[in-house]
Amino acid sequence: MTLTGNMLIGQHTVTGSREAIRAIDPATNLVLEPAYPGGTTEQVDQACALAWSAFDSYRETSLEARAHFLESIASEIEALGDELIDRAVAESGLPRARIQGERGRTCGQLRTFARTVRAGEWLDVRVDNTQPQRQPLPRADLRQRQVPLGPVAVFGASNFPLAFSVAGGDTASALAAGCPVIVKAHSAHPGTSELVGQALARAVKACDLPPGVFSLLYGSGREVGIALVCDPRIKAVGFTGSRSGGIALCQAAAARAEPIPVYAEMSSINPVFLFPCALQARAEALAQGFVASLNQGAGQFCTNPGLVIARQGADLDRFIATAAQQILRSPAQTMLTPGIFSAYRNGIEALAGNPKADTAAAGLAAEGPNQCQTHLFVTQARDFLTDPSLQAEVFGSASLVVTCADDEQVRQVAEHLEGQLTATLHLDDGDLDNARALLPTLERKAGRLLVNGWPTGVEVCDAMVHGGPFPATSDARSTSVGTAAILRFLRPVCYQDFPDNLLPTALQHGNPLHLRRLLDGQREA
Amino acid sequence: MTLTGNMLIGQHTVTGSREAIRAIDPATNLVLEPAYPGGTTEQVDQACALAWSAFDSYRETSLEARAHFLESIASEIEALGDELIDRAVAESGLPRARIQGERGRTCGQLRTFARTVRAGEWLDVRVDNTQPQRQPLPRADLRQRQVPLGPVAVFGASNFPLAFSVAGGDTASALAAGCPVIVKAHSAHPGTSELVGQALARAVKACDLPPGVFSLLYGSGREVGIALVCDPRIKAVGFTGSRSGGIALCQAAAARAEPIPVYAEMSSINPVFLFPCALQARAEALAQGFVASLNQGAGQFCTNPGLVIARQGADLDRFIATAAQQILRSPAQTMLTPGIFSAYRNGIEALAGNPKADTAAAGLAAEGPNQCQTHLFVTQARDFLTDPSLQAEVFGSASLVVTCADDEQVRQVAEHLEGQLTATLHLDDGDLDNARALLPTLERKAGRLLVNGWPTGVEVCDAMVHGGPFPATSDARSTSVGTAAILRFLRPVCYQDFPDNLLPTALQHGNPLHLRRLLDGQREA
Repeated sequence: MTLTGNMLIGQHTVTGSREAIRAIDPATNLVLEPAYPGGTTEQVDQACALAWSAFDSYRETSLEARAHFLESIASEIEALGDELIDRAVAESGLPRARIQGERGRTCGQLRTFARTVRAGEWLDVRVDNTQPQRQPLPRADLRQRQVPLGPVAVFGASNFPLAFSVAGGDTASALAAGCPVIVKAHSAHPGTSELVGQALARAVKACDLPPGVFSLLYGSGREVGIALVCDPRIKAVGFTGSRSGGIALCQAAAARAEPIPVYAEMSSINPVFLFPCALQARAEALAQGFVASLNQGAGQFCTNPGLVIARQGADLDRFIATAAQQILRSPAQTMLTPGIFSAYRNGIEALAGNPKADTAAAGLAAEGPNQCQTHLFVTQARDFLTDPSLQAEVFGSASLVVTCADDEQVRQVAEHLEGQLTATLHLDDGDLDNARALLPTLERKAGRLLVNGWPTGVEVCDAMVHGGPFPATSDARSTSVGTAAILRFLRPVCYQDFPDNLLPTALQHGNPLHLRRLLDGQREA
Repeated sequence: MTLTGNMLIGQHTVTGSREAIRAIDPATNLVLEPAYPGGTTEQVDQACALAWSAFDSYRETSLEARAHFLESIASEIEALGDELIDRAVAESGLPRARIQGERGRTCGQLRTFARTVRAGEWLDVRVDNTQPQRQPLPRADLRQRQVPLGPVAVFGASNFPLAFSVAGGDTASALAAGCPVIVKAHSAHPGTSELVGQALARAVKACDLPPGVFSLLYGSGREVGIALVCDPRIKAVGFTGSRSGGIALCQAAAARAEPIPVYAEMSSINPVFLFPCALQARAEALAQGFVASLNQGAGQFCTNPGLVIARQGADLDRFIATAAQQILRSPAQTMLTPGIFSAYRNGIEALAGNPKADTAAAGLAAEGPNQCQTHLFVTQARDFLTDPSLQAEVFGSASLVVTCADDEQVRQVAEHLEGQLTATLHLDDGDLDNARALLPTLERKAGRLLVNGWPTGVEVCDAMVHGGPFPATSDARSTSVGTAAILRFLRPVCYQDFPDNLLPTALQHGNPLHLRRLLDGQREA
């Protein structure tokens, strides 16, 4: 297939007429063809109208039909073959194996949501049968199910051109819930987006779904995104990106005549706590694991370990020394875009110029454009507690060790943290009481807590939480990874005294979908 | 017990020093003793500090201990006896039987949440066991539970001095979820609030819980409420009241450094659709049922039927004529407060002065102060579709009939509606196709759909939804009545590779709480 530079409004390819975006191969700084002219507000309006027209029909597709659609998207993406891999590598600078793995994850995620849709637990069916003899008043027949919110605007992320982009987690969970999706492609990978968008549109057609179930728009500035978020037919937003970008979308959504939910995943430095016994037993091994996690994908993960917290002393010194040795040998790695590289460099320069932070090590110098040189800094807890700039996310392979005088200062640093996606504890048996004392604080701060692992690597499964208190996300009540993400795009509706032939299938008396309902206060077996 | 005019910060009675509120008996306009001086921002700060200090302890109480606490609150409220009933009647102008019924509902609601807490389904435990042999990478052990958001600010409602007030639905669901609660009492019923607050504080003490689990504040203006919503230790807000009040709280919450969820139930006119066959078969009976619902509690229910929509014709004329006869005989009823009565009178005058609305009937004239005279107006669909003022809520026994030329205009009116708590359909077998065609629209507009009933009367049960799209509420993703309300105050946390002795009880490998977990993708029997 030849890339066209066109957007998709349903099954129609349309050409934007605003400033074009062009992908850049960050490994060479070469501009990639074709140009992707940005959409107009009229085109946003058309996509929203089409999505709206598709909603009532799409949301009542059978569980099987919807699951099959999700599986078809996965198959269509796989059918793109090497063309997709080649383009994504060129647009992202990420290694080929990583992109291949990300494709597997993206397609696996779609199939996982297909299983979730079929199981139907997300409908959360609750039935309270009528009690006509109840005194003083009879009880009506009351039945509840979940219905989708409406068309969802999804903003592709820079750092996962497949798994958090056009057919990524937000799109998969919204489609699973029964919401049409309009994606605004990330400007870093428009070609990858077009390929996946075309695959998704083919699945819509093959499954005979209304065309408005999916559209794909481009835009170089904020015009398309803000127009989408402000359109009255859009009922929820999914976003993964910067803190400033996420907050701007939240503010736009809150200022609407009808405010809508925004699920923005924004900023996390993912603290790692090294407890004394673990540090004493294996400072060097911990340092090696830490640097491997820090360097993964040039540190361009939301869950990159950007903060290490431990009691000062010889064991922590060994950890820092070993980490520094590892970092000195770490090759520089191409970052996703020139803009991300520039922001990384600025962040490093700010830390290097901060008298409260010492540079412990820097990795091998860059040998090409846009390359991230790994950095490790060290600061003292009393400085971390008073200088907010030390808590700012530096997106890339940079981390900061906070040395604490005692356990109480470790606790103070933990309590001082902003909301996080993850918090990691490295501990041995002798650290359990220490760790237990810190857990209440960490549960309040983060969506996922790990023991003796590293936060990079986010499993797509039922129990995953990729979320957390602000500013990690704009809404801690949900997750953007894992099957529970389907719950973000739903709302409950109660049906009172409906005749059976007017009830939605999921609520009918004969339980034709064989759901385990909450029936008169008891969960069905 | 003698009323003191004091607030409660945990177990301490404290006296405010700002402008005092005083209850007024709306049936007589007499001022009731004592005065309730308003809290200061320092007292808000103290209550928040105490709530925060209680949070980590309270949220880890056992399911049994928390359920017992909720039951103890109910018992303490019942132990207040007639003093509570007398005061609530005096402060609200509501009939004694209604207040007695509302006490029963309030205590029943607390006990229902106790059952929900014990059942533990709200923990939504999900377990994905480790797969150490998985290729290319092993899978970690991942376990998810729900944890409470943190201290919750609850604003008492005017129209349910017990069931939506100090120990009402918001308080019960937040306490059930594990959140400490700070209530700002509604200024219409401070004495009722003090009595219930003291009962709640006694339950806290009897159950040996940290005192910050509950505080009760007064305030005549917005100072206390806004200070509460803006305090960084408050993590969610529950509110039932006016649209302007709810929106102000939402804006304050969104402007915080850390935005928080606001569950505001605000404005609903609860459309009732009369389908042709039903109207032909029983226009008179429908009119009688309608007026009974309209007059209930002087129309001061969030679910009051403020809008009737039907095709014009002789059958609708019969409905209107019978309703008018009923209304002509309807006695005026005391409203909750002079302010609410004044707003009702203004709303009626606006409709009476609107050339697009005809007055079909007015009830018997008032015989005392603050009495609501029932009103019925009629307008045409084309006017309703173009005049937004006809869709404004008039809180009280007022309703508007919208006459439509045909089914298409019925659909247009439905589509034109703002978000609602309820939508009601009166239908016979011959109307089923008509009703089915309208359902997708109504599902998008309302949280609860009723057939052949009336929207007043909200059952506290598992399947209830008392919520709906904006402006019915600020967050359609939840309900404020029924056991699903507990979900509003929770967020998921994932525990990765935790040793069993560091896991929360709900997630331990032996499943000591006997929960039906989602285990490796399967729901346990």
